[in-house]
Amino acid sequence: MNHNTVIVRYGEIFLKSDYVRKKFENKLIENLVLKLKNKNLSHKIIKKRHRLYIESDDERNIERIAQEVKDVFGIVSVSPAIKTGAEMEKIADIAVNFSKNLINSNNSFAVRTHRTGNHEFSSMDVDREIGAKILEETCSKVDLTNPDRVIFIEIQDDCAFIFDEKIKGTGGMPYGTQGRAVALISGGIDSPAAGFMMMRRGCELSVVHFGNEIDEIIKKLENYSVHKIKIYNIEREIFNEILGEISKVAGKYTCVVCKRMMLKFAGKIAEATNAKGIVMGDSLGQVASQTLDNLMVVNSAASYPVYRPLIGMDKEDIVQIAKKIGTYELQSKEGCTFTPKKPSTSADLRKIEEIENEIGIDELIEKFMKNFIHNLTPINPAIV
Amino acid sequence: MNHNTVIVRYGEIFLKSDYVRKKFENKLIENLVLKLKNKNLSHKIIKKRHRLYIESDDERNIERIAQEVKDVFGIVSVSPAIKTGAEMEKIADIAVNFSKNLINSNNSFAVRTHRTGNHEFSSMDVDREIGAKILEETCSKVDLTNPDRVIFIEIQDDCAFIFDEKIKGTGGMPYGTQGRAVALISGGIDSPAAGFMMMRRGCELSVVHFGNEIDEIIKKLENYSVHKIKIYNIEREIFNEILGEISKVAGKYTCVVCKRMMLKFAGKIAEATNAKGIVMGDSLGQVASQTLDNLMVVNSAASYPVYRPLIGMDKEDIVQIAKKIGTYELQSKEGCTFTPKKPSTSADLRKIEEIENEIGIDELIEKFMKNFIHNLTPINPAIV
Repeated sequence: MNHNTVIVRYGEIFLKSDYVRKKFENKLIENLVLKLKNKNLSHKIIKKRHRLYIESDDERNIERIAQEVKDVFGIVSVSPAIKTGAEMEKIADIAVNFSKNLINSNNSFAVRTHRTGNHEFSSMDVDREIGAKILEETCSKVDLTNPDRVIFIEIQDDCAFIFDEKIKGTGGMPYGTQGRAVALISGGIDSPAAGFMMMRRGCELSVVHFGNEIDEIIKKLENYSVHKIKIYNIEREIFNEILGEISKVAGKYTCVVCKRMMLKFAGKIAEATNAKGIVMGDSLGQVASQTLDNLMVVNSAASYPVYRPLIGMDKEDIVQIAKKIGTYELQSKEGCTFTPKKPSTSADLRKIEEIENEIGIDELIEKFMKNFIHNLTPINPAIV
Repeated sequence: MNHNTVIVRYGEIFLKSDYVRKKFENKLIENLVLKLKNKNLSHKIIKKRHRLYIESDDERNIERIAQEVKDVFGIVSVSPAIKTGAEMEKIADIAVNFSKNLINSNNSFAVRTHRTGNHEFSSMDVDREIGAKILEETCSKVDLTNPDRVIFIEIQDDCAFIFDEKIKGTGGMPYGTQGRAVALISGGIDSPAAGFMMMRRGCELSVVHFGNEIDEIIKKLENYSVHKIKIYNIEREIFNEILGEISKVAGKYTCVVCKRMMLKFAGKIAEATNAKGIVMGDSLGQVASQTLDNLMVVNSAASYPVYRPLIGMDKEDIVQIAKKIGTYELQSKEGCTFTPKKPSTSADLRKIEEIENEIGIDELIEKFMKNFIHNLTPINPAIV
């Protein structure tokens, strides 16, 4: 008896007003379809009472569909299930057969039924009747408070679904429901995790990067977004040359001046691509450039709101996120060679602006922008 | 055989430079002392090689000390332990006695030794010798890969510590090591959790509040800060009157105008109290005032960086934090009565500024400030 359906549950979306909810549901379905199409998994999606059900011509694909779908933003949980008609006998037949593989005399079980629609039986009736049949066939024991296994039965109108696991999804909101932001992403652990957190809340991302290759990191993020993430990259050689100049003039303020430059450039990209905020991977006090004093000076270079989803997290929390999304292993091992030995923890804005004038930061950013003049399309095409 | 010591482990602090690390360690010890003094728990703190050890005249207090100390920011874990001399026989005697209460023929165990300093034995010797003695006395079985119980032995120079649990601490950085920020805190679930996240990273908090009583919420936060959190409160009646006026003019933009007013006021308080940022409880897209469009308009009223540690979190994540810190149960059940039925999700800055001029928001904020003119001391006195 094989799984033939994936039950898909989504979360916060249904707290929204009717209009917003429909818009969000449509986006969610669009993203699901795209993901399964990209993975060559044939499927059919059925929408019914705040749930989605995914079927496939090929039942062998059901488990893979569940695994792919759980990572689509907006999904709270998925369950590979056996779908059947909503008649007690049919449900009982399948539930008993299904249970034989899960339950034996060494463990305990419970049946938990959830029902919507009109039926001749109550949920309690189903629990009792099918529980008794499973007990008879498996020599197991019933434990309603702390069972080893739960047989879930969900009955919706004329359909019933039998399953034993709820696989946790990534949560959040459908990608693309919250407009676009520009994320400053390095090859480190923090900034990709910050980008992920914002994407998870529905925010479409463009990426500004200074240095070589972050394609593998971006691919990991695209596994969740399902849509292509556009990268605006200033190459390492050019960047190193500039940083060399900056560090000569800025000394212990090098990191602050560098971050302000990145933020100014991200602001220009945001403006040109109709984005509405900038995302950074700062965690308060983690390094010298992330003290409240320095963040204040860095922030004043921003022409857009700066979102720092990791600001209140410990390194350990951030590592957990990076490991989960697969970017941890991809972190660049080489630190920045221009970090001063004793970086300042409390920069002064006037001093920094003097340094920036001396370096000519604004002209530099204009030069960067020329690199991208033909390339500032704000559309994120779907990955095919 | 009673616990007579609490081993205290701290985290990120020791990644810092020598100077910063010492400053942070001193702050951590200061906060620990204060917490235990407030709770009337007599104690002595010994600092040794990146660990703290807390002893007490009264051994019955050891478990309580561990519980109080684990919530002090900066602490990664604590272990109530038995301290003894670093001689093999002494350690063995105590470890065997200690194990008799934990281990029996129904479960398995492992001994794990960690040693620094010069001794006549290696860590492996201790594991082996004491493991064999425990085995003899308890009729248990050894399982090195997946034991039911672990007997930890930590040997530091002339002291040894025997314990069986590592209680997870709150993590973060010592409160007061990162300067001050002003948090906008309501009676809801989100903003106290946001305040907590920033405090956890060492940020000292002052609170701006519009409405009645949040004393119980602040007490929960003070349980972690150990220091008094100052509240700047505009009373509900005054606030309701103002909101009534605002909603008449602002209509569907009421929430955006209201948030901008709060942010402007928080900015004034930040300026007057030498704070360096503003903390808000926004989570992207959770409600209409938290779309990227609206946040952009709200943000432009800020004269300081705005930190939103919950911006990338789902409601469920935030609820978990609120439950952990004890503010969830204290949430105000009454929503704001001025929230428009169909709030705008994309405010326009020029339109909003017109509305604000009509209402006279800036004069209003000047009036608020007069309330606090004698009360703007930036010092957060310790709770006694």
